[in-house]
Amino acid sequence: MAPQLQEYYKTVDSLAEPFIERLRQAVAIPSISADEARRQDVVKMGMFLKEQLESLGAHVEARPLGKQPHKEHLELPPAIVGRYPAKKDESKRTILVYGHYDVQPADLSDGWATEPFKLSVDDKGRMYGRGSTDDKGPVLGWVNVIESHQKAGIDFPVNLLMCFEGMEEYGSEGLDDFIMAECKPGKFFAEADAVCISDNYWLGTEKPCLTYGLRGCSYYSIEVSGPGQDLHSGVFGGTAQEPMTDLVRVMSSLVDTDGNIQIQGIKELVAPLTKEEESLYQDIAFTMDNLYESLGSKTGIFPDKERTLMGRWRYPSLSLHGVEGAFSQPGAKTVIPAKVTGKFSIRTVPDMEPPEVDKLVYTHCEKVFEQLNSKNTMKVYLQHAGKWWVASPKHWNFTAAAKAVEDVWHVKPDLTREGGSIPVTLTFEQATGKNVLLLPMGSSTDAAHSINEKLDRRNYIEGIKLLGAYLHYVAEEPMEG
Amino acid sequence: MAPQLQEYYKTVDSLAEPFIERLRQAVAIPSISADEARRQDVVKMGMFLKEQLESLGAHVEARPLGKQPHKEHLELPPAIVGRYPAKKDESKRTILVYGHYDVQPADLSDGWATEPFKLSVDDKGRMYGRGSTDDKGPVLGWVNVIESHQKAGIDFPVNLLMCFEGMEEYGSEGLDDFIMAECKPGKFFAEADAVCISDNYWLGTEKPCLTYGLRGCSYYSIEVSGPGQDLHSGVFGGTAQEPMTDLVRVMSSLVDTDGNIQIQGIKELVAPLTKEEESLYQDIAFTMDNLYESLGSKTGIFPDKERTLMGRWRYPSLSLHGVEGAFSQPGAKTVIPAKVTGKFSIRTVPDMEPPEVDKLVYTHCEKVFEQLNSKNTMKVYLQHAGKWWVASPKHWNFTAAAKAVEDVWHVKPDLTREGGSIPVTLTFEQATGKNVLLLPMGSSTDAAHSINEKLDRRNYIEGIKLLGAYLHYVAEEPMEG
Repeated sequence: MAPQLQEYYKTVDSLAEPFIERLRQAVAIPSISADEARRQDVVKMGMFLKEQLESLGAHVEARPLGKQPHKEHLELPPAIVGRYPAKKDESKRTILVYGHYDVQPADLSDGWATEPFKLSVDDKGRMYGRGSTDDKGPVLGWVNVIESHQKAGIDFPVNLLMCFEGMEEYGSEGLDDFIMAECKPGKFFAEADAVCISDNYWLGTEKPCLTYGLRGCSYYSIEVSGPGQDLHSGVFGGTAQEPMTDLVRVMSSLVDTDGNIQIQGIKELVAPLTKEEESLYQDIAFTMDNLYESLGSKTGIFPDKERTLMGRWRYPSLSLHGVEGAFSQPGAKTVIPAKVTGKFSIRTVPDMEPPEVDKLVYTHCEKVFEQLNSKNTMKVYLQHAGKWWVASPKHWNFTAAAKAVEDVWHVKPDLTREGGSIPVTLTFEQATGKNVLLLPMGSSTDAAHSINEKLDRRNYIEGIKLLGAYLHYVAEEPMEG
Repeated sequence: MAPQLQEYYKTVDSLAEPFIERLRQAVAIPSISADEARRQDVVKMGMFLKEQLESLGAHVEARPLGKQPHKEHLELPPAIVGRYPAKKDESKRTILVYGHYDVQPADLSDGWATEPFKLSVDDKGRMYGRGSTDDKGPVLGWVNVIESHQKAGIDFPVNLLMCFEGMEEYGSEGLDDFIMAECKPGKFFAEADAVCISDNYWLGTEKPCLTYGLRGCSYYSIEVSGPGQDLHSGVFGGTAQEPMTDLVRVMSSLVDTDGNIQIQGIKELVAPLTKEEESLYQDIAFTMDNLYESLGSKTGIFPDKERTLMGRWRYPSLSLHGVEGAFSQPGAKTVIPAKVTGKFSIRTVPDMEPPEVDKLVYTHCEKVFEQLNSKNTMKVYLQHAGKWWVASPKHWNFTAAAKAVEDVWHVKPDLTREGGSIPVTLTFEQATGKNVLLLPMGSSTDAAHSINEKLDRRNYIEGIKLLGAYLHYVAEEPMEG
């Protein structure tokens, strides 16, 4: 029997102004994790969150994560972990939710139209402010869900476990180990039946989505060196083999203009496209104009949305990011750089195993370099690798969320993947062994890491309804879905 | 009849200590032209030079060169122009000499073993200090030549015109127009019969040389753009054509590991090697170990000195300097740069006309880019061009200098060219229409633009003898040489 949520929805609507006020208070705390000088504001934001949850009767702990790596004078902000109801109801499922309370840097002088740390709501209901959509809106969404149930006098449908971190915008320092430890038997997150993360975005602006896949990323450096120091091209040009000449030749062998990776064996690692999967793309709410708008140009690879979405979600890509050690300033400098390091990364997808990708990359680069017959020296190495993640969208965690979307938004959600990575997703999957759902609140135009970040009032209020509805549906969904 | 110079040489030897003291005073003035805060020191150095020359009876003027371009608050240091004897002797030839009294930046913290602005003479006679060899030693050389003639009671053999500038290490701002104007009839430099510049170095450490050629330099940018702003490779990798992919492909088409320029038509512009020229290289005092030592590695292109010297002096070369707009820092950033600009330059030689080179470069890049079939936009343009220069080493200006070298150093000088450019050389040739000789004082190990710049005591003192002897020989050389 479908949950009856009209009373809950009405209560959320009636509390809209206090919920916006709560977001205003949170945005006012400049919890920039990348800025050492703001570390106390990050901690303050964690404490604000803890107090809000405690005032609603949740059990909350601020867990220290130790010192920041390479900055021994600097304490990491705590992980705020919570449980609601404070005492576990053994008859209910347990859902673990994640979000982050730190934000990207922001300054009016970057080009913001309004003060970044002052929530400004315009006449179209766009709520501008740093962290509004990434990720204070969604995090407070869970707080608001609890308050709405209390005010409406509705029984809370699940045991909610919460994990809110304060270093997401700075590489989630210290979090992986913490999650792995707290998911062990007897620990805080041990009894989670499923995981829900609200820290991504709709593909467009009108249609909600559930996200079940992310690409991985393997990041490489190609270092070519020869001379003992930088040389003057007037004196040495034409007499010395130049590392930069070799480097651009190796870099130019990796990928072509249409994004085809030229490294032998990479294509063969990619899971083949099934008829069933192929049929999914045409229904996704996405147009080529959406692409062109976000690119700011018409320089896309494919003319159609299906291949574009596949290019973003289910096929690997290779991007050349730049060169370290060469002349990179404006103007003209006649230097022969002695040591240059090309940077590139491959976005990985099922079934590419990162170590296999590494091996193919090394073999390719070494082969190309060998053909140059150069006296210079080349080293290729991995800087870091994060694996791709794909969950089953047929799992009850997803079917429950899909029903909640239909109930709140009156539309079936798109099932999407993303081209980028959210590494904590894979950590939760591995630590809990459970299904992980990405359930976004904001839309594609929210400008998360940019100036004029915003969250639409509609996405915030309907999003609070959605998060609550999801908990009701997930409480009732048959487990064998 | 060869000039009898024993008395002159003896006098120079007897004045060695005062001459070193003069250099010490000059080195103590930190006349760094690139540093605005030191501009008054540059002017002070110009005034020091003026006073030294005036105290010897020369006519000297400090000529204003106007404001520094793009820095309207900053007056350029003056050109110090002089004439000795103060009144022209119409029976004698007129020789115009050039040097510069500004220096490269230097700071003890850069790694200097001694204070850079305090001349430190070690037990091997190496005189360390910024500007010692570049170019205060040679400039004061001319002052010392005048003083030595006076002290020895020897008639000065020529009319000496002097042009000393204070912005050479910062692009000789304002100087070209000044030279062109002052070489016009009736102006200060109008009556020069030949030009001598002492601002380069021996090829090695033991054998003096006369330099009769310099390569030119044409510096290009290749700009590739597409997206409206930098993109995230997770979101857009595999869906957008990336400017960096196109750029490295164009850059990799320009030159190979062994320095062969791949631009069609460039080779055909190069003056063919004659038997006579080919035979000159084997006698030059240069070894492959000299190359390896200065490279700091064995990554040379050619195994023999002849082809190495030709690669530096008489063939063009193409160097890739770097990329502007891409990621160039340490670490890993997953950016797709929206607009990237590759920088490269071609060292040009006879008979390459810069506009012809430009045309071949543009045609080549456009052809390669067209083959990529990219939606991105490419622009190729010249940043600046300086033409090559080659003088006739059979001119009396050179034969006189060669005899002076034999008289002072008891060895025939090497006739050399240089791979780099000294733009003022071509300016003097064009402005005067006369032969220009490069007559170096310092040696290849002087580290002109580096830390621990030095001038050997021997090169300074024998160099003063050489500059004086040159004036005597040039006064007597038959004009039809």
